[in-house]
Amino acid sequence: MYTIGIDLGGTNIVAAAVDENCNILAKAKTPTAMPRTPEEIFDDIAKVSREAVESAGLKMEDISSIGLGTPGTVNGGIIEYANNLGFDHIPAEKMLKERLGDLPIYIENDANCAALGEAVAGCGNGSKNFIAVTLGTGVGSGIIIDGKIVSGINHAGGECGHMVIVVDGVPCTCGRRGCWEAYASATALINQTKAAIEKHPDSILAQLAKEAGEVNGRTAFDAMRRKDAVGVQVVDTYIKYIAAGVTNLVNTFQPEILCIGGGICNEGETLLRPLRRYVESERYSIYSSVQTEIVKAELGNDAGIIGAAILYKAN
Amino acid sequence: MYTIGIDLGGTNIVAAAVDENCNILAKAKTPTAMPRTPEEIFDDIAKVSREAVESAGLKMEDISSIGLGTPGTVNGGIIEYANNLGFDHIPAEKMLKERLGDLPIYIENDANCAALGEAVAGCGNGSKNFIAVTLGTGVGSGIIIDGKIVSGINHAGGECGHMVIVVDGVPCTCGRRGCWEAYASATALINQTKAAIEKHPDSILAQLAKEAGEVNGRTAFDAMRRKDAVGVQVVDTYIKYIAAGVTNLVNTFQPEILCIGGGICNEGETLLRPLRRYVESERYSIYSSVQTEIVKAELGNDAGIIGAAILYKAN
Repeated sequence: MYTIGIDLGGTNIVAAAVDENCNILAKAKTPTAMPRTPEEIFDDIAKVSREAVESAGLKMEDISSIGLGTPGTVNGGIIEYANNLGFDHIPAEKMLKERLGDLPIYIENDANCAALGEAVAGCGNGSKNFIAVTLGTGVGSGIIIDGKIVSGINHAGGECGHMVIVVDGVPCTCGRRGCWEAYASATALINQTKAAIEKHPDSILAQLAKEAGEVNGRTAFDAMRRKDAVGVQVVDTYIKYIAAGVTNLVNTFQPEILCIGGGICNEGETLLRPLRRYVESERYSIYSSVQTEIVKAELGNDAGIIGAAILYKAN
Repeated sequence: MYTIGIDLGGTNIVAAAVDENCNILAKAKTPTAMPRTPEEIFDDIAKVSREAVESAGLKMEDISSIGLGTPGTVNGGIIEYANNLGFDHIPAEKMLKERLGDLPIYIENDANCAALGEAVAGCGNGSKNFIAVTLGTGVGSGIIIDGKIVSGINHAGGECGHMVIVVDGVPCTCGRRGCWEAYASATALINQTKAAIEKHPDSILAQLAKEAGEVNGRTAFDAMRRKDAVGVQVVDTYIKYIAAGVTNLVNTFQPEILCIGGGICNEGETLLRPLRRYVESERYSIYSSVQTEIVKAELGNDAGIIGAAILYKAN
């Protein structure tokens, strides 16, 4: 049995033919090239889907279902709203069937797809109680309970990046103040690094940024590796913010595994070791014999594609 | 079909005979009278259970299962830890069977039982996606997804009161700083009221407290009703803290219904109307056509007993 998994992103549209063991047999890709009409985008989705199937040596008749991961809110085959694609109530299921045939269609938010992919085929090793957190431009998250995606009555759930961890804190893009995303995203780390450079212009951190001509998500970590006190402070505070949200999720869900993905997770144990220490010292379940494991995400961008391809398993 | 629901509290042990429509047929109660040994407590649990069955005109042969709601962490028939009962790995299932016969036994944290009771038989009207928040001495919570209690791999989940909403904020009894409980419990409101009185000794709020000889969870609301600016400010800030946590839960779960219980919820719409306003202005799901309903809990102390009695439905 084979399925198609599609990752509809703001930059690229990627489709893959996936077997029942979650192996990607072939991928095809095209730029999303916004701004375009939904019709044009769905024409390209169909095109890369057929390309992936063909590259895998399969025919459309071999495909048993299609899964689409998309930004925004999905409700019953409709993409209700996806800001970066300009989608407002797009009949995605219908548009896919029109272009790819009358197959079972599953559509889900992309962060939820990524969580499902990691849970089933990545670091989750088939875990049924799993949370994936992505530290990127924003903080994304997906929640799996009893093997199913938690997205609530309106499919807008799982937005843990928009959990306030500092009431009246710094403004978030969502309109609230003090969201986890505003403290724990890569964007937030860059802002925190820039603020520290301004305050400590003679630090190694400031020097590294000057040499590179920019500040990115690695700058503070690099300064820390050079034993710079300012770099150490920025990284420690940043990890403490990540830990605040992670501990909130542990106290709420007590998942078997919580994985951290996104660009920042390339720091590996440099990030994870102190993060685990913060969570261990703060979690409510100090008396439990079983505890949440905190690990690095494994599948990178493939998580969302695989998750989309196996949505049939989570419905 | 009839079941027994037991609420094992720090103050009282209450048992009820409950029918399959969640009606309480009869209740019996005895003081917990701590400190006592687990054996003594379980002898009393058995005693009040038999009394409730008899008062309902039933026999133990009519009972198909027993549900026990307890403070603390429950894991596979064992109460792993319950601070206020002095329990440390108590074999509760075995102790119940020894005293009440070889019936199916379900044991669950008391806040989770209360959530299940409200979801099925109270304000939830049978809702399968439901969160109950109790604003009392602490902030308790219980989460129902797909009709099942969410308690994670170690049965210690659902502790949303210990979600940090102010990193490095005021100390919480759990050891963290800035937990929702430390800002949104009745205890927190009393502390916030006392601080305002100290700062504004000439306010109506201060006068009301002086007349009453104490500060309780109603004092600030009463001052607000007398149009006292200090009282208005205390209540507004307190409701904003409640809203911060409620919005976090809405963004995470998007439940069908979220209910507020505990002593503070007696303020009814005085509390709920501004709370809903804050949540509406801050939730992430602004584009969704379906939204979480925020309502008052209906069953009071019976929620936990009914929830315990119907644990068989949620397993």
